[in-house]
Amino acid sequence: MHLVDRARAGDPRATARLLSLVESASPRLREASAALMAHQGHAHVIGITGAPGVGKSTITSALISAYRGQGLRVAVLAVDPSSPFSGGAVLGDRVRMQAHATDEGVFIRSMASRGHLGGLAAAAPQALRVLDACGFDVVLLETVGVGQSEVEVVGQADTVLVLLAPGMGDGVQVAKAGILEIADVFVINKADRDGVPATVRDLRGMLALNPGGEDVWIPPIVKTVATTGAGIDDLLSAVDRHREWSHHSGDLFQRRVQRVQRELEGMALDLVRDRLGDAGDLARRVLAGEIDPYRAAVVLTDDL
Amino acid sequence: MHLVDRARAGDPRATARLLSLVESASPRLREASAALMAHQGHAHVIGITGAPGVGKSTITSALISAYRGQGLRVAVLAVDPSSPFSGGAVLGDRVRMQAHATDEGVFIRSMASRGHLGGLAAAAPQALRVLDACGFDVVLLETVGVGQSEVEVVGQADTVLVLLAPGMGDGVQVAKAGILEIADVFVINKADRDGVPATVRDLRGMLALNPGGEDVWIPPIVKTVATTGAGIDDLLSAVDRHREWSHHSGDLFQRRVQRVQRELEGMALDLVRDRLGDAGDLARRVLAGEIDPYRAAVVLTDDL
Repeated sequence: MHLVDRARAGDPRATARLLSLVESASPRLREASAALMAHQGHAHVIGITGAPGVGKSTITSALISAYRGQGLRVAVLAVDPSSPFSGGAVLGDRVRMQAHATDEGVFIRSMASRGHLGGLAAAAPQALRVLDACGFDVVLLETVGVGQSEVEVVGQADTVLVLLAPGMGDGVQVAKAGILEIADVFVINKADRDGVPATVRDLRGMLALNPGGEDVWIPPIVKTVATTGAGIDDLLSAVDRHREWSHHSGDLFQRRVQRVQRELEGMALDLVRDRLGDAGDLARRVLAGEIDPYRAAVVLTDDL
Repeated sequence: MHLVDRARAGDPRATARLLSLVESASPRLREASAALMAHQGHAHVIGITGAPGVGKSTITSALISAYRGQGLRVAVLAVDPSSPFSGGAVLGDRVRMQAHATDEGVFIRSMASRGHLGGLAAAAPQALRVLDACGFDVVLLETVGVGQSEVEVVGQADTVLVLLAPGMGDGVQVAKAGILEIADVFVINKADRDGVPATVRDLRGMLALNPGGEDVWIPPIVKTVATTGAGIDDLLSAVDRHREWSHHSGDLFQRRVQRVQRELEGMALDLVRDRLGDAGDLARRVLAGEIDPYRAAVVLTDDL
């Protein structure tokens, strides 16, 4: 497919166009489907998440520099919650990454999920498929929020980094979003601040609940100061170790099966949505007491 | 329907049971469908959202006390992002509401959305329908996270309170989650702290972008110190004013049509999901390069 070939040759506009097709759940993506599948499984997807203020963008930027130093092509997919009214993705601190804007080996994109019924959870695996097929060696999947959708999305990465900063709220606040459980590597960023030992102790206490064993990965805790680059080498090593472990243990394959499974379900839902009846009219009839909601839902699916 | 009648008579176990049916997307809910519809439109649903630490639980608790003082029955639905691995909703600071635990006019429940394909966005309107039918006068819909799902859910309320605290990060951080646009009332909590004028100024600046007009609601800004109860009366007045405005302007009806519309789409998806084929097997075939993802998605929907 022409678009995929152009993207693989390094044309960022072709990559951007493919991602726009994903974002709007365009049927035109179907034409690229076989071409996308022909080039799959190369990219290592690194998820990056954590509460606002822990330094996700700075870590992402540091990782871009490090992988570029190894000659690898790097894509960044920033998953922004879109406003339900403006429909726009807030670019926010994307500006911090402008240092990489002129590097042809780096592709950066913020993504919302306007067209998708299944939201980000459905759109993200398709976007990862596109970036993988476009020939990137590393894809950094950064989430801006830490809500349910965002946790679900970042959990689809091959290696998940959960960022914390010392002294930033107690563990309970962080645990609320359910992000601790998805960590493959914990990153305590801003590690030049006070409170690092307490944060490490909290994490170790939590990790001790994990019984461990031969085939169990215990997430390492890496300390970084992303603004100075301190600890970034340790972080790269930890990611490499997890990558190797997950490859040999079969965990990587399992995770990718799940990712494709969600992708297929998301695509199937998009297909189904196009065939659903008019819910607005039925909703008015439910409010008027003319039809009960379950029957209305059945009517909606009648013509599938 | 027996369960709905028992719930309306004030049996909290019956209400809890109905919500469990929603949470697990149980087909048994269909039996209650007509009974639920027979008692709709009474409850006023107040959405409460804001970044962690602004005092959502404390405001919720203060509102419970205030409405109970008016003799109203109050339900609280706390929407927690559930961990994708444990499947459990983190109860977190629900404990702060234990003061109301022995009050029979108050029902408090944390909710995840395990069974729902459409996630919280699909489960929430059904849960609101249940609480409305169970005879509550006020339903407080509190979101724990501020991700895309959570914003979508709280946007379904009749009146949306967006909480801020002075000096808590800049406006951009808050705007990221897209929550400013859904506010019907802004609440600056912890208003005894420094930085209130700056927060008010930021909000006024943003609101000034709104052209206003006859049929346009300009969200008022209310200052509270929820721990002492200061400003709670002002908050109640602001909610009442919005309720009256939205009733007369037709905005309330429009919002409820949209809520039911999402509910119907969510129920329709749950029906469809039960009929989808096995995505796991197809996912393995996609990874093996045997079938392209779009074709696999079509196969998934084949037997609908």
